[in-house]
Amino acid sequence: MSLAYANGKVNKFDPMEYRSIIRIIGLLVALFSATMLPPAVIAVIYKDGGGTAFMQAFVMSLLLGLILWYPNRRAKADLRTREGFLVVVLFWTVLGTIGALPFVMSELPDLSLTDAIFESFSALTTTGATVITGLETLPKAILFYRHLLQWLGGMGIIVLAVAVLPMLGIGGMQLYRCEIPGPVKDSKMTPRIAETAKALWYIYLTMTVVCALAYYLAGMNLFDAVGHAFSTIAIGGFSSYDASMGHFNSPAINMICVVFLLMSAMNFALHFAAFSKRGIRLATYWRDAEVRMFLLIQLVLVMLVFLVLLGQKLYQSPEVALDKALFQAVSMSTTAGFTTEGFATWPLFLPNLLIFASFIGGCAGSTGGGIKVVRMTLLSLQGMREIKRLIHPRAMFSIRLNNLPVSDRVIDAVWGFFAAYALLFVVIMVTLLATGLDDVTAFSATAASLNNLGPGLGDVASHYGDINDVAKWVLVMGMLFGRLEIFTLLVLFTPTFWKS
Amino acid sequence: MSLAYANGKVNKFDPMEYRSIIRIIGLLVALFSATMLPPAVIAVIYKDGGGTAFMQAFVMSLLLGLILWYPNRRAKADLRTREGFLVVVLFWTVLGTIGALPFVMSELPDLSLTDAIFESFSALTTTGATVITGLETLPKAILFYRHLLQWLGGMGIIVLAVAVLPMLGIGGMQLYRCEIPGPVKDSKMTPRIAETAKALWYIYLTMTVVCALAYYLAGMNLFDAVGHAFSTIAIGGFSSYDASMGHFNSPAINMICVVFLLMSAMNFALHFAAFSKRGIRLATYWRDAEVRMFLLIQLVLVMLVFLVLLGQKLYQSPEVALDKALFQAVSMSTTAGFTTEGFATWPLFLPNLLIFASFIGGCAGSTGGGIKVVRMTLLSLQGMREIKRLIHPRAMFSIRLNNLPVSDRVIDAVWGFFAAYALLFVVIMVTLLATGLDDVTAFSATAASLNNLGPGLGDVASHYGDINDVAKWVLVMGMLFGRLEIFTLLVLFTPTFWKS
Ligand SMILES: [K+]
Ligand SMILES: [K+]
Repeated sequence: MSLAYANGKVNKFDPMEYRSIIRIIGLLVALFSATMLPPAVIAVIYKDGGGTAFMQAFVMSLLLGLILWYPNRRAKADLRTREGFLVVVLFWTVLGTIGALPFVMSELPDLSLTDAIFESFSALTTTGATVITGLETLPKAILFYRHLLQWLGGMGIIVLAVAVLPMLGIGGMQLYRCEIPGPVKDSKMTPRIAETAKALWYIYLTMTVVCALAYYLAGMNLFDAVGHAFSTIAIGGFSSYDASMGHFNSPAINMICVVFLLMSAMNFALHFAAFSKRGIRLATYWRDAEVRMFLLIQLVLVMLVFLVLLGQKLYQSPEVALDKALFQAVSMSTTAGFTTEGFATWPLFLPNLLIFASFIGGCAGSTGGGIKVVRMTLLSLQGMREIKRLIHPRAMFSIRLNNLPVSDRVIDAVWGFFAAYALLFVVIMVTLLATGLDDVTAFSATAASLNNLGPGLGDVASHYGDINDVAKWVLVMGMLFGRLEIFTLLVLFTPTFWKS
Repeated sequence: MSLAYANGKVNKFDPMEYRSIIRIIGLLVALFSATMLPPAVIAVIYKDGGGTAFMQAFVMSLLLGLILWYPNRRAKADLRTREGFLVVVLFWTVLGTIGALPFVMSELPDLSLTDAIFESFSALTTTGATVITGLETLPKAILFYRHLLQWLGGMGIIVLAVAVLPMLGIGGMQLYRCEIPGPVKDSKMTPRIAETAKALWYIYLTMTVVCALAYYLAGMNLFDAVGHAFSTIAIGGFSSYDASMGHFNSPAINMICVVFLLMSAMNFALHFAAFSKRGIRLATYWRDAEVRMFLLIQLVLVMLVFLVLLGQKLYQSPEVALDKALFQAVSMSTTAGFTTEGFATWPLFLPNLLIFASFIGGCAGSTGGGIKVVRMTLLSLQGMREIKRLIHPRAMFSIRLNNLPVSDRVIDAVWGFFAAYALLFVVIMVTLLATGLDDVTAFSATAASLNNLGPGLGDVASHYGDINDVAKWVLVMGMLFGRLEIFTLLVLFTPTFWKS
């Protein structure tokens, strides 16, 4: 490969840019310290003794933030694309690390540093894999904090996916450049991200409130309703119970979960378009090719699971089978990872099928993980184009999405994303196998981390507490790679990024 | 997607074309009937009683061939691209079915129709998965026939990969259009394929003779030397012993196998270029980017396996460990699938690593299976280009292979190939799981069939005799898809192919 033509200045990072980045991270850390306060309040309300760790974590993270921010408070270089990668990666790694503080300092649960980091990154990336068992015995403060971390992570993901990644051009997401709320032609990142974030924040908050209300009305107590609304809208999948959603054993709650998971797995820019004027314009959704494909995939999966469950006569009535099929198919394929009783005992091909479905995942610009429906759609269209090209070698076919032609650049980027995803999958799985995990565990854990799904099969079917520490760190990397759409993190490992 | 511009006539198949295709298939079947004669002769020499089935099969296939050929003997329409797909697919399916005749009619082994078809397709696609155990007890005629089928299949593959697929433009193989021996600008397929086949035939035969001689000198008897040379050059992996190459327990034989596997896994068009003038010009190989990448991959794999074996102290000396590592890494990653004693007991991540390596497979235009090294190279280059594009969004980067720019059309086709491969993998694996196979068996059997590798793990580690019939048929489809580079077979399933 050669650099045939380069337009635009290509500079090394200068000190001012580094200081500006440190200033932003310092501000974020200081803001993030406020996350420790609600759990502290919860501790006071429930008198569960879990408050100290959070007050300590609050002070420590606030101080750290100020220490990073203060010396660089006047360093306000405009962020360009390249610095964007660094800020995004630092955002997740620094907050993930600081988020582990309460887990480290709590007496219950008594987690090692590795486990604390795993739990924090799993929450913040909305993966929802847990190393903790006996959730029912934990202080409410810790339970609330886990939900809250997922919720904040989900918010971060939406801003990342709707506002930042399209500008960075990750994995074909430049496709969405024109759909972002805010001034379109502006190349400066900061004001635009702030404006977009504000708009998305209202939608995210509204959906969470409505979801919590629905859970409450369906029979959850207030604490569970808010907590589970947090991890539903974030498609995180954390629960306050070892039995996950199965604890409630309520078709109504399952159905609410399904509805809000489906909404949260759609592009939030679409919610923005549908919600912004008076009322909700449902046509906005149906006009979107990705949403149509997404719903079609859900329908096919639910039907398939339902028919297999019926055929195997696993449940006493078709209604129960449909409830289980609908809930589990949507929960897994949107990458939420909530479970109900019995999933682990389903015939082996169903869990595997749903794990494969999590590779497709949610729509772009949602809180869902996986490769994303729009990319899968583009890959299918390209696959069909290749077949047509084979039959009619001299004809020209263009790929169109939502009646607009898709540029070759976008298609290239989607392919690159897909290949990197596959390669990373193999590397992580082989590494896990080398640490001693068995085949089923390694395969499902790799999928569960890379797709930000959460639960796996084999030794990680219910929790990740029993696997070795090296495997845990590898999975943390997997979650990060998945959440940052591979390339945001991958570029930092290339010499080109730092040198030229 | 829309047909923006179509150049060239697009017709339905006319009766003359169908008759012409039937004529060709009839000729092929009649020619193929001769394959039954050498085993019949072997049966006479060894007095093993296996000859009757082969004489019956000879008569039946010769008659069938003549019945297909005679009424259409004057139907000589020129084959165009589209008919090419049909002929290639019919070639493998018809010969695979007829190749099963001796297995069906033999008393030893006593195979069901499904098993006979499985064994025949596995041989002809050079997969080398077997449903038979107790190979040592079989008539020599059957053993020789299995080797011979692989050898003919290997020859078919080379002609397919060097002469036919580049013209059909399958999976980016139009890249090799200009490298094919024979008249380049000619769009008529038949004369060109005949000419290319003749040139390749000499190389293939020469390599086989030299390989057999080397095996013989290293201690095999004449029967084993010829048989194993057949399945080595075809990268088929069939042996006459249940213990495969491990039966001979000879580092010299292992080394001969490795050398000829490496040669057979290189592009035969390259052998043609290197061999055609006086002597062998080794520089021809080294100048080829695919060969360099291929050898690099082999080196890395062998070193990795060697170091793990050393670290685990599985063998008494480093020499033995190196012998085992070299043989097994090359055997698996070239998709031969020969094994030696102990492979199945290696630490779990090594068998999996080598199964993943079989996805890369051999070079294009070789007898090796898998996705092929050149495609993996192009995918890597494209991946690196995507990273560079992210860092320098306004720059233009071109992908070059062997100092020539690679067209976007080729890159597109390679991506399409990769995605179809991945999709097919998931479909086959989930189907196998649904038939009741466990995770490890389903995963490895899918890889082993799609990559034309042969041996798997779990229930198919030593043979495929114990799995259910539906799984066997699915795997036969997998072998065919893999051998026909997915798209050759896939196009036949599209309405576009038949209608427009
Ligand atoms: K999740
Ligand atoms: K093979």
